[in-house]
Amino acid sequence: MTIGVCYFPEHWPRERWETDIEAMADAGFEYVRMAEFSWAVLEPERGQFDFEWLDEAVELIGEHGMQAVLCTPTATPPKWLVDERPGILQEDSDGTVREHGSRRHYCFNSTAYREETERIVSRVADRYADDPHVAGWQTDNEFGCHGTVRCYCADCADAFREYLAEKYDSIEALNDAWGTTFWSQRYPSFEAIDPPGPTPSDHHPSRLLEYARFSSNAVVEYNRLHVDLLREANSEWFVTHNFMGRFSNLDAYAVSEDLDLVSWDSYPTGFVQDRLAGEPTPAQLRAGDPDQIGMDHDLYRSALDRPFWVMEQQPGDINWPPYAPQPGDGAMRLWAHHATAHGADAVLYFRWRRCLEGQEQYHAGLRKQDGSPDRGYHGAKQAAAELAEVGEDDHVEAPVAVLFDFENLWALTEQPHSPDFDYWELLERFYGAARARGTQVDVVHPTTPLEEYDAVVAPALHLVDDVLATRLTAYVENGGELLLGPRTGVKDAYNKLRPVPQPGPLADLVGATVDRHESLPSQLDTRVRNVNGENTYQFQVWAEWLETATATPLFVYDADGVENDRAAITRRDVGDGTVVYCGVWPSESLADELIEPLLARADVPSSDRLPDGVRVNVRGGRTWITNFSSDRIRIKPATDVTWLIGTATIDAYDVAVAEQRVLDGLSIEPLG
Amino acid sequence: MTIGVCYFPEHWPRERWETDIEAMADAGFEYVRMAEFSWAVLEPERGQFDFEWLDEAVELIGEHGMQAVLCTPTATPPKWLVDERPGILQEDSDGTVREHGSRRHYCFNSTAYREETERIVSRVADRYADDPHVAGWQTDNEFGCHGTVRCYCADCADAFREYLAEKYDSIEALNDAWGTTFWSQRYPSFEAIDPPGPTPSDHHPSRLLEYARFSSNAVVEYNRLHVDLLREANSEWFVTHNFMGRFSNLDAYAVSEDLDLVSWDSYPTGFVQDRLAGEPTPAQLRAGDPDQIGMDHDLYRSALDRPFWVMEQQPGDINWPPYAPQPGDGAMRLWAHHATAHGADAVLYFRWRRCLEGQEQYHAGLRKQDGSPDRGYHGAKQAAAELAEVGEDDHVEAPVAVLFDFENLWALTEQPHSPDFDYWELLERFYGAARARGTQVDVVHPTTPLEEYDAVVAPALHLVDDVLATRLTAYVENGGELLLGPRTGVKDAYNKLRPVPQPGPLADLVGATVDRHESLPSQLDTRVRNVNGENTYQFQVWAEWLETATATPLFVYDADGVENDRAAITRRDVGDGTVVYCGVWPSESLADELIEPLLARADVPSSDRLPDGVRVNVRGGRTWITNFSSDRIRIKPATDVTWLIGTATIDAYDVAVAEQRVLDGLSIEPLG
Amino acid sequence: MTIGVCYFPEHWPRERWETDIEAMADAGFEYVRMAEFSWAVLEPERGQFDFEWLDEAVELIGEHGMQAVLCTPTATPPKWLVDERPGILQEDSDGTVREHGSRRHYCFNSTAYREETERIVSRVADRYADDPHVAGWQTDNEFGCHGTVRCYCADCADAFREYLAEKYDSIEALNDAWGTTFWSQRYPSFEAIDPPGPTPSDHHPSRLLEYARFSSNAVVEYNRLHVDLLREANSEWFVTHNFMGRFSNLDAYAVSEDLDLVSWDSYPTGFVQDRLAGEPTPAQLRAGDPDQIGMDHDLYRSALDRPFWVMEQQPGDINWPPYAPQPGDGAMRLWAHHATAHGADAVLYFRWRRCLEGQEQYHAGLRKQDGSPDRGYHGAKQAAAELAEVGEDDHVEAPVAVLFDFENLWALTEQPHSPDFDYWELLERFYGAARARGTQVDVVHPTTPLEEYDAVVAPALHLVDDVLATRLTAYVENGGELLLGPRTGVKDAYNKLRPVPQPGPLADLVGATVDRHESLPSQLDTRVRNVNGENTYQFQVWAEWLETATATPLFVYDADGVENDRAAITRRDVGDGTVVYCGVWPSESLADELIEPLLARADVPSSDRLPDGVRVNVRGGRTWITNFSSDRIRIKPATDVTWLIGTATIDAYDVAVAEQRVLDGLSIEPLG
Repeated sequence: MTIGVCYFPEHWPRERWETDIEAMADAGFEYVRMAEFSWAVLEPERGQFDFEWLDEAVELIGEHGMQAVLCTPTATPPKWLVDERPGILQEDSDGTVREHGSRRHYCFNSTAYREETERIVSRVADRYADDPHVAGWQTDNEFGCHGTVRCYCADCADAFREYLAEKYDSIEALNDAWGTTFWSQRYPSFEAIDPPGPTPSDHHPSRLLEYARFSSNAVVEYNRLHVDLLREANSEWFVTHNFMGRFSNLDAYAVSEDLDLVSWDSYPTGFVQDRLAGEPTPAQLRAGDPDQIGMDHDLYRSALDRPFWVMEQQPGDINWPPYAPQPGDGAMRLWAHHATAHGADAVLYFRWRRCLEGQEQYHAGLRKQDGSPDRGYHGAKQAAAELAEVGEDDHVEAPVAVLFDFENLWALTEQPHSPDFDYWELLERFYGAARARGTQVDVVHPTTPLEEYDAVVAPALHLVDDVLATRLTAYVENGGELLLGPRTGVKDAYNKLRPVPQPGPLADLVGATVDRHESLPSQLDTRVRNVNGENTYQFQVWAEWLETATATPLFVYDADGVENDRAAITRRDVGDGTVVYCGVWPSESLADELIEPLLARADVPSSDRLPDGVRVNVRGGRTWITNFSSDRIRIKPATDVTWLIGTATIDAYDVAVAEQRVLDGLSIEPLG
Repeated sequence: MTIGVCYFPEHWPRERWETDIEAMADAGFEYVRMAEFSWAVLEPERGQFDFEWLDEAVELIGEHGMQAVLCTPTATPPKWLVDERPGILQEDSDGTVREHGSRRHYCFNSTAYREETERIVSRVADRYADDPHVAGWQTDNEFGCHGTVRCYCADCADAFREYLAEKYDSIEALNDAWGTTFWSQRYPSFEAIDPPGPTPSDHHPSRLLEYARFSSNAVVEYNRLHVDLLREANSEWFVTHNFMGRFSNLDAYAVSEDLDLVSWDSYPTGFVQDRLAGEPTPAQLRAGDPDQIGMDHDLYRSALDRPFWVMEQQPGDINWPPYAPQPGDGAMRLWAHHATAHGADAVLYFRWRRCLEGQEQYHAGLRKQDGSPDRGYHGAKQAAAELAEVGEDDHVEAPVAVLFDFENLWALTEQPHSPDFDYWELLERFYGAARARGTQVDVVHPTTPLEEYDAVVAPALHLVDDVLATRLTAYVENGGELLLGPRTGVKDAYNKLRPVPQPGPLADLVGATVDRHESLPSQLDTRVRNVNGENTYQFQVWAEWLETATATPLFVYDADGVENDRAAITRRDVGDGTVVYCGVWPSESLADELIEPLLARADVPSSDRLPDGVRVNVRGGRTWITNFSSDRIRIKPATDVTWLIGTATIDAYDVAVAEQRVLDGLSIEPLG
Repeated sequence: MTIGVCYFPEHWPRERWETDIEAMADAGFEYVRMAEFSWAVLEPERGQFDFEWLDEAVELIGEHGMQAVLCTPTATPPKWLVDERPGILQEDSDGTVREHGSRRHYCFNSTAYREETERIVSRVADRYADDPHVAGWQTDNEFGCHGTVRCYCADCADAFREYLAEKYDSIEALNDAWGTTFWSQRYPSFEAIDPPGPTPSDHHPSRLLEYARFSSNAVVEYNRLHVDLLREANSEWFVTHNFMGRFSNLDAYAVSEDLDLVSWDSYPTGFVQDRLAGEPTPAQLRAGDPDQIGMDHDLYRSALDRPFWVMEQQPGDINWPPYAPQPGDGAMRLWAHHATAHGADAVLYFRWRRCLEGQEQYHAGLRKQDGSPDRGYHGAKQAAAELAEVGEDDHVEAPVAVLFDFENLWALTEQPHSPDFDYWELLERFYGAARARGTQVDVVHPTTPLEEYDAVVAPALHLVDDVLATRLTAYVENGGELLLGPRTGVKDAYNKLRPVPQPGPLADLVGATVDRHESLPSQLDTRVRNVNGENTYQFQVWAEWLETATATPLFVYDADGVENDRAAITRRDVGDGTVVYCGVWPSESLADELIEPLLARADVPSSDRLPDGVRVNVRGGRTWITNFSSDRIRIKPATDVTWLIGTATIDAYDVAVAEQRVLDGLSIEPLG
């Protein structure tokens, strides 16, 4: 539970470094990340290296009692390298080359670039192998940023063919697995398969899914190249990578398997603008959406089931979203607490000082362009002091798992079947309903052992194989509480439909099948009715008309649709366990009607429904209440509380930390 | 009046075929279409043919008393062919090649592809030349789908130059005809003329119109290649092609001249979403717009003045529109009746069973993915039984002609002069007003003899030559009722303005000229007033300020415009005939004010104005009432009726068929 | 104060010319512009010239007592030239070549095209060197139209490298000046720098700004080539270029330095549709926005501080905006008066007659396609008579300067930091507040001497150097009234941030600094409150939180923002002068609250706030009242008035001209 910062000594005169680093230490920071875009500074010409500046910066950091985190500088190959070996550049699917002049312009499958990567990574790793002030390494920077996971160059074409030839026994096997009889798409050989380029109509979904897998896999391999070289140089270093928020084309679980520590870059007021459906509220523009950020905290924590880091934390206004409102007063500190409450062990702000040059001049730092403290600095300093006080780094114990899978994401993104179907949004709908009850949630890959969880929510297990079906069945039979969402059990591993009714291998467990499905524009009235009550609830985007076998209807359609009184949501009790199948994309209130009884059945501690933007987390013995709303709130715990930080009444964008677990019976009232 | 289905035996195991084909026969189907994307199955490697599967399928169909319709498999050249002869691929105007991986990736002007087409078409035609179970052939599949009529490759460049050299006596003649003095666009030779590529500003409209003609003409030639080979093999086969709804770049009239039978592919709930201005209503999302579909039925029936087929009929939810709501209960049966009422002799549903592989997994079939009947199957079966009962295949006799011309469409699409000007929409405005009175309408090319029609409506005869002007004048002088719409008589055949006031050669007939025109955004108030009354009516998009000579104003402008009391719509009586010129794009109510008196003057039987979504058709001695609305309706005929199907009260998406003609005096009341 | 017309004799038969030219003379026109797209007519094949047609047209014009303005015909290189030397074509940043087939397809940096330009310009200049009827020349036509200032071809790459090598002492100097350490963007040599092509993320802003400068500079050079050759042929000719409205990529001030006369092309109902934020009002659709047009009149007048021309004046409905409503009754005449009131000495309508061929058939002329007079002809003729009567060509004396700079525009357009930040719109907000008081305004480059101005408004002096800071300080110290807008004093000349608080070198003068800034979407409440009052005012898009030193707050934030009561607008008195710093993008009413007291302090004559769409101009001793609104208005001068044209009550789209200056105390009432 500590604070750090990202620093670019190469952007500032040496005479300033001492001042800066002293101010970091004064603020109570522990980690300073450096050098992730420094290749052209470290090696201005091929073979001419200049490490002195970085040596000196690391030394200064050590002298001030802090530790350096260094980065392999591969995210920005220098111009001299691009000019020497232009084949390293990425290509769009239409053949447009992505040139030098910004960042991330290299291809992960380029053999030339892998050679150059080995060369530079070995060099920097060796240089600091014995440096006592270097705690660990970040590989590259934000793999996949700016849509760079998928490249379509000649190196990729070769590598894709090799990947397929290795995966499939023969071209006949591939043709069978994909189903290339459709539209005469049969491939005569592996050599005949290209990356998916421009075509008159849609691509074959099986080809697209394999290209998605192949492309993600290339990043896994490329990251492993860094990891191996770093570990070879010094096996005590930790190695991490800084992922981004809701990055879709890269399987972060797979990359994480090679890491010691997972970290990510959190920009709350940017993410609500550019990766959330709908228009953000004023409070979200000031502090972000705690569930959007929280779901990524939980995903990256769950990736290795271990505390994570926020490697870059938004420090103030930022340059890349459509709008750049100033964060709410206190938001920078709030985010550090929120991350910690979700299981972060370190939060590093990006960056130390607003940069005078280049593409990010409109990105704030903890310090202004003149070097004086900005609001973020004060927030970071206060957070550092408070977190030191809160102490102890317990790992978060989550009683509920949400199952998430990048392969489902790719398959559903290729064939959304509605402009409004966004898998991340659907996840957040179910996830948010659990979080609105204060429950900690793991966001795990479906292959994760489920026994430890009291309840499991799977919003859309699109591709389900028999092994997973067996595991889920066993989970319920052993008393587990399972909630399945729409579009579950549709496809096989090759993105082909199964020749049985949805949810395919889960049909017996669910006790119901999908008779047919539909996607729905907003002008159609979409409601379901509780079978044991008068209430109706909105749903959106997706509807499945269910045929019950051993299951019981919970909600039925009740709208100007085509077949009312049809089951939309069903329940089946299996021994001590229960499986609920939800065939629609629920509104918030409908999701709450599903999650609340789920938590009750699973006997999971939970609060009353929390106000929008207010969230509660339990980590170790402590309870965090974080207020992302623009209202002051009053906290009403059911038991006595000792407040480590704050009190029972807290302001907008403020936080309170209790020494106890206070979730059960907790209620929170907005004061306006 | 019969039902059929599209079947892909190559997608299913042989042991299933018997079951499937038996179920088709049980449902009363007569035709099974097959093989339109089967090239890679029929010829997996060059020269290695495999016909056995198709032989067997045809044989099974015959054994079950049905007939096969086969397709030339050219819409999807296999990968081995593309790799051997990559020059067959299409190119976009910016040089991007449209690669293998979906369908329709070949160029119509490719000499290589024409050779390959001859080779495969001869082969398949010869194979089935003596097969008693093959009734006829469909050429290729949906020419022009996915924007593929216009290609910009080197073969096209050569062919375009040849086309021009053949059409024009000399390059000077072309320069004069197009008017290339403008912006120094003079061509020094035919060799200097390219397909229209990327340019800083707009292209010359005369060049664009010729490229549109040339491109459509290439498809005509390409289709003829198929037709000739098929007829050579067996002159008793019918040959058809399956057109699509509102396909703009291909002159379907010209292609049809080489066919025995015209067919098209009808997807009502898709077309209302992707080729209709404005947001569809809930009822349209469930069943489509009967006038949008009806206008295509009438166009394709009129193309050869002969009963047509629906070669692909939507079977349920489909994959390609933005949203995929389930069709209303009964809609699949309704569509078959509606097509029949418009003159269809056969309606084939697409497809038999939801496909497990490839791009159309989200496209329903009559059977679900597990092979069990879906809702479409029940609707199709019921329709088959009912249509067998209704009997007799009379040809539709339409008293009213709407004049339509693809060249007008191309010219107006290149220079719409307003983002809201869509020629198809304007057509439907006039067409729909006639259909709202139950009148059958032919949608014919302007060169069609007009004597047989009681009334003729020409929504926008943009390019008018003297011959047409003479014919229209004679039509009115001989007692015809003519209604002309805006943008009539503007251009010559080369897309140049005439040096006389609009409507050019029609000015004498109309008795008025266009003083000036304007296009209008929605924020301007646009109304006209009946000169003999107090009522005002909205219009949209387009206004022409008329100068009357021998004509009388019917409606004048009455808005915050720039010149009120100017004539907007005029009338001139010529002997027993009348010509009305409408200078605006009328609202629905204004169009009704023009069509109702037109039908009265022409003495055409008509009903009261029908409710939205309810339409009436007379075919032979029968009357169909089709209800595309979400309301129950009550039918109130003026005379006694025997109901062959249904009764006087019918539900949403239901149909009634009377044994008599009941149009005159008919009124229909929505019951909500 | 005279009228003219643009004529294309080459589009019409010679037998028509006499009729046309006589009608021009009858209408009182003085100038006829010709030949700007005539290269292929003048030189149909290389070296084969045909000047006779133009000789004859010029002669006829002279015989009718008018003068010809000729154009160098380089905007449309003929096809034979493109085919001979294809390297002259422009390239987009993604490598797409802009082909022949419209206009402006050549690259300004093409050495081949500069050779060809010399050849043709010398030839035409020599031909008419002694012709008494040729008054002057227009170079080329609308440099930059259709986004053609910036090209990315190989010639441009070479020229860009030369430009940089000449500007910077060494590559190290460039790397330092730009700050290429950021993201490892260091350039090893000038040869390594390319035009900015496709990249995964944003380009370096310093590179972009240099490319913008370089590209604009190439046009300056290219124009100078024409000017030098024309002056060499006949030094008494005037040389002009016709700029366009709100053209952003070309520095019109820099081009103008080589001209004798500045002219521009004014299309009021087009510009309100395609280069104005927000939806135009009905009145704007009929007559345009007088401030949008007026600001360009003032900019082009200010460029040489000399009367300007409107070289193309909209004659009626036009082809290129989204919609083509007919201009309001009288608008064509209104525009001529409005231009004259802003300092125009000649207004030439474009074009004489609607063209029968090519891309502009939907563009009206003063004559219809049949040659008969259109409404524009009557308006132009009336304007010619009235302007002859008004007489005397005084130069406009403007007491207020608005500072404008294309380099600021480029820097802010590259990094708007909000989708809503449009520098032109911000300028018009301040400019319009001054014009709503009837004040004449110069729109000048910041290097213009300021002493002559009573007040200076600088809406966003983004790039400020020390010289400008010193000059502005001296201006205020000497009693000047200065109003600065947001985003002032942010960057250095290389588009790098200054390491001091904004407004950088102006901080001492302003007496306040920017603590931080934000950009704001419309869903956030954005208001400021007058410190001496209760009123609140909206602002938009941009907010700077000010820290006052020697300045006093005038307005403070008062909204649900993050820090209220912070200064938003400050004032500092310096001797007799005052500097007001406005940290927000003001609403119209807030701008009025700033401009009204500014004019009062500066003792500038002004009217009451004028109604929307009504504007007043003083030129010499006369006062023009122009009514762009759809209301009739009543003019209430404070003193006696003699009306030269019109009376005190004028209709929509009408004008009145008084013999006196009547600004002070003037009020105008809309009558509805």
